[in-house]
Amino acid sequence: MSRRVSRQEFDTLFDAVRAWGRWEEAPDRGAWNRVTDEHVRRAVSLVRSGTVVPMGRPWDTVSGPDNARPALHYMSGLGDVEAPEPATHKDFLGADYHGKAVSHLDALSHIAYRGRLYDGGAARELVGAAGARFGGVSALGPLVTRGVLLDLPAVRGLPWLEPGEAAGPADLAAAEAALGARIGEGDAVLVRVGRYRRRAELGPWDADAACAGLHVDAVPLLAEHGIALLGGDGDSDVRPSPVEGVHSPVHALAIAAMGVPLLDNLDLEELSAACAAAGRHTFLLVVAPLNIPGGTGSPVNPVAVL
Amino acid sequence: MSRRVSRQEFDTLFDAVRAWGRWEEAPDRGAWNRVTDEHVRRAVSLVRSGTVVPMGRPWDTVSGPDNARPALHYMSGLGDVEAPEPATHKDFLGADYHGKAVSHLDALSHIAYRGRLYDGGAARELVGAAGARFGGVSALGPLVTRGVLLDLPAVRGLPWLEPGEAAGPADLAAAEAALGARIGEGDAVLVRVGRYRRRAELGPWDADAACAGLHVDAVPLLAEHGIALLGGDGDSDVRPSPVEGVHSPVHALAIAAMGVPLLDNLDLEELSAACAAAGRHTFLLVVAPLNIPGGTGSPVNPVAVL
Amino acid sequence: MSRRVSRQEFDTLFDAVRAWGRWEEAPDRGAWNRVTDEHVRRAVSLVRSGTVVPMGRPWDTVSGPDNARPALHYMSGLGDVEAPEPATHKDFLGADYHGKAVSHLDALSHIAYRGRLYDGGAARELVGAAGARFGGVSALGPLVTRGVLLDLPAVRGLPWLEPGEAAGPADLAAAEAALGARIGEGDAVLVRVGRYRRRAELGPWDADAACAGLHVDAVPLLAEHGIALLGGDGDSDVRPSPVEGVHSPVHALAIAAMGVPLLDNLDLEELSAACAAAGRHTFLLVVAPLNIPGGTGSPVNPVAVL
Amino acid sequence: MSRRVSRQEFDTLFDAVRAWGRWEEAPDRGAWNRVTDEHVRRAVSLVRSGTVVPMGRPWDTVSGPDNARPALHYMSGLGDVEAPEPATHKDFLGADYHGKAVSHLDALSHIAYRGRLYDGGAARELVGAAGARFGGVSALGPLVTRGVLLDLPAVRGLPWLEPGEAAGPADLAAAEAALGARIGEGDAVLVRVGRYRRRAELGPWDADAACAGLHVDAVPLLAEHGIALLGGDGDSDVRPSPVEGVHSPVHALAIAAMGVPLLDNLDLEELSAACAAAGRHTFLLVVAPLNIPGGTGSPVNPVAVL
Repeated sequence: MSRRVSRQEFDTLFDAVRAWGRWEEAPDRGAWNRVTDEHVRRAVSLVRSGTVVPMGRPWDTVSGPDNARPALHYMSGLGDVEAPEPATHKDFLGADYHGKAVSHLDALSHIAYRGRLYDGGAARELVGAAGARFGGVSALGPLVTRGVLLDLPAVRGLPWLEPGEAAGPADLAAAEAALGARIGEGDAVLVRVGRYRRRAELGPWDADAACAGLHVDAVPLLAEHGIALLGGDGDSDVRPSPVEGVHSPVHALAIAAMGVPLLDNLDLEELSAACAAAGRHTFLLVVAPLNIPGGTGSPVNPVAVL
Repeated sequence: MSRRVSRQEFDTLFDAVRAWGRWEEAPDRGAWNRVTDEHVRRAVSLVRSGTVVPMGRPWDTVSGPDNARPALHYMSGLGDVEAPEPATHKDFLGADYHGKAVSHLDALSHIAYRGRLYDGGAARELVGAAGARFGGVSALGPLVTRGVLLDLPAVRGLPWLEPGEAAGPADLAAAEAALGARIGEGDAVLVRVGRYRRRAELGPWDADAACAGLHVDAVPLLAEHGIALLGGDGDSDVRPSPVEGVHSPVHALAIAAMGVPLLDNLDLEELSAACAAAGRHTFLLVVAPLNIPGGTGSPVNPVAVL
Repeated sequence: MSRRVSRQEFDTLFDAVRAWGRWEEAPDRGAWNRVTDEHVRRAVSLVRSGTVVPMGRPWDTVSGPDNARPALHYMSGLGDVEAPEPATHKDFLGADYHGKAVSHLDALSHIAYRGRLYDGGAARELVGAAGARFGGVSALGPLVTRGVLLDLPAVRGLPWLEPGEAAGPADLAAAEAALGARIGEGDAVLVRVGRYRRRAELGPWDADAACAGLHVDAVPLLAEHGIALLGGDGDSDVRPSPVEGVHSPVHALAIAAMGVPLLDNLDLEELSAACAAAGRHTFLLVVAPLNIPGGTGSPVNPVAVL
Repeated sequence: MSRRVSRQEFDTLFDAVRAWGRWEEAPDRGAWNRVTDEHVRRAVSLVRSGTVVPMGRPWDTVSGPDNARPALHYMSGLGDVEAPEPATHKDFLGADYHGKAVSHLDALSHIAYRGRLYDGGAARELVGAAGARFGGVSALGPLVTRGVLLDLPAVRGLPWLEPGEAAGPADLAAAEAALGARIGEGDAVLVRVGRYRRRAELGPWDADAACAGLHVDAVPLLAEHGIALLGGDGDSDVRPSPVEGVHSPVHALAIAAMGVPLLDNLDLEELSAACAAAGRHTFLLVVAPLNIPGGTGSPVNPVAVL
């Protein structure tokens, strides 16, 4: 059972990690401003084998306990709609991609705490039916940086962490030590809890009700390290939430306080195996969200190159 | 006016560049099989400045002469649908993305010629309402390789090629020479005709009716070089088509004969400027299609790193 | 437990009720051809009180055991997208409406048996990605006729029939007798099993796996009566199917053999109460499907006027 | 050229026809409260021939000058997705139906003037991403009442009114007189300007920029008559708007002031011919919107029975 956190304590934490006003030129990009061309070059220099590992889950059109709003995939042409030669096969894709099923990026407009987006703007003024006027995913653009995989079950010699299990700062530090992967400024930190291995073996469950993930106590460490991106095979938040009256406290801290976008629902199984085989847990990471003006995020298929 | 090509001549060309049966282990990946880990390492080694350049056009929800089926973007939550704290802003995205408006990748199932997909399977048996059982975009996965920008207007000192203008093998060779960019095996070739500069200056037009692009005569050169991917700011095909009775002959040759996926509707303006500034037209390219089982392609935001 | 029916027996039944070639002028309309202007006038003459009763279920956007593909409803404008004064609020609706959740009409193109649509055309030739070239819902148009409610639980003094319970010809005849409602030519027969009362009291269940409905033995009686439309609060078929190797045998008989469209997932609770209060189970029925060229059906909100 | 109306004059008119607070039991239904069971019985008694006339335009998936957001229609099953026997053909429908292309009903939540919905509630509080909490289309339910066709071109012996032509109170009175159709309390008034005949003969045009319709001067007459519904083959408003700073003044008056829902984009050509043939312009009208909780309207296929 993870430590309970009062609302007052959470608000103190929120203020402590808050980085509003920090990047005046491009506040929409938040912590992605940390990634300079030099970070890109250093990330690129990590490549050894040239192994390419994707993390995007299959587009899931079947509803289930962890897929309440299944994605859409319809064939709009089967060679019988348009003039032939060549015959063209076409499809329509649709998704209400936030949730527990689609691998996606959360842009800074996705979350507001106490009515405020990252950098302090009023959500009600900045986000409407036409999309977000601050913190849209187009403002983020692509991210190329060093990725660090904190493979929590691997460190503990377990196949996965059980739903509800919370990882705190000691767990992150232990993973860094065990995996030889020190988090640095501008890094993208990917936390594996083994969700999709468990799902493959035991079947899907309601990951909104119970999922392993980070306790808010782990967030100051990430803030100190100056990360640019946080992601995982869950949605970063341990569920149920340990914070009184806040359903997704890591979302609130990372996105709204720190300006750190999140990657949710990544399939990290292949990456876990590849890192173990390579004996290292840092790599070149490329995240290329779709260019959606005013979008609160984007489905993505992040790529690691080892 | 580009050289007219008879159907018979086209069929001879189709057979000449056909690479069916070539990659038996993973035929769905077609020419992406050419890209080995060594290609990845060499592509990565090209990075100098660390400049990151995206090519995805803005998600275009407004219909127009080059956007007959506008993409969808609706807000599914504005902090008023789910429990607050934090407030969550969510959106639905949808697109019948093939066409002239969305930056996208064509997988091998997108095109059939004379009823046959790449590698010879019958389209009618392999593609149905449930998607493609051969040549789906999930089979392709991400591509990391060397990108080569053939910036045709830059070579000629023009802002753009006019709609209908066709580029042949001499144009490609001249671009290689002028830009110092030799196409090699496993490369991704991006052909710029300046479509989006023209669109920005003169407004949109029906790019299905007239667009600068490749003449089929240019395809054998690309086949000889053993490219892995072909793309551009049009859809590679010059329009109107110079081939009798074939509306998209480069699509047919690249995808159905050679197993080379295509990238359509890329915004190459920023890349053109970045390459000119850097004085080189080769770079690390990362294309990360969404993981759509049975999908005929995917919206993408390809990324160049210089 | 309902009587098991062999495939051979079913095929004999199919041939016995088959009405192919019967309406040569407008075969797409199938049994709706039975409804003449005189039927309309007679249906209209049934109106006594003027009570209007709708049967359309609420658009259900929440996935669940009986809603695997939830309908979509997104606000596309909240007064902040278009010029103000007046402010306009707009919404997007979407549905893969066949299934167990949306009240809808099945047109004749919805079902093929042994590869044949109603009237004998080959489904593979007539239905493609562009829609149906025979039996589309636009060909049906609206239906105004006499509706007959066969309220099976009311006849038996039960709140509902249990999932899996099958109604045969004796049940229909008993209902006619008890309710004083004789089925006649051109009538729309609505069979209530009490599904939505059960759902309201006990919660949703997988109605595809188990639902009360008609046994195929009941179909010849309906064929003899010359009905124009069949509907209910289930989807007419008892589930699981009593017919070997045929998952929806009443669909096959009604639609593909007899040319009788179906109404699925109607909420008949209010109508049941209104008919009981009025002491009669016949009424003016109006079904107005959306005009979808090539559509296999339409979401509808059928209206009874008592 | 239609008479210009100042904003001040419009506001005076708004107040003059405002019927806020009038129907306290069911304010969401607005003027539909006028239609009692007796109105239904009288409407039903109008039926003579039994001719059924639909008014819904074909679902239009092709973008064009009067269809900026084309409707979606994709086949989700072609007998190859689900278990066979019978084979099932299924489709997905989608539409951002407000606009100029889909025949639809505007519910009371569709329009706010000076921030207020019908009956005075604040739009910003009552309409959000989860839909409308006041004035949703589900609250309206179906309407069965007397329809009156004011066939303006027929009265003038013209095929259609030209785009931009405004009809005032004298035009409506002249139509009533010429057609022998007196508007009464609870009636649904359908105004034909011949839009779809013109479209069929001359092709589509931007009906948002110019369309024949009602001048605001005609609204007091409709208010005095106590109508329940207003509709037409345009969207009731003459365009361009004659009112300074108000783009859709008839929408504002009918919906927000009077609580009268609107029917837009009806194809009235067949009804015009049927009424002319029958020698009368009143009939039984049935409008059955889909049951969309919180929806601002619904695609519909209204039905007249003569």
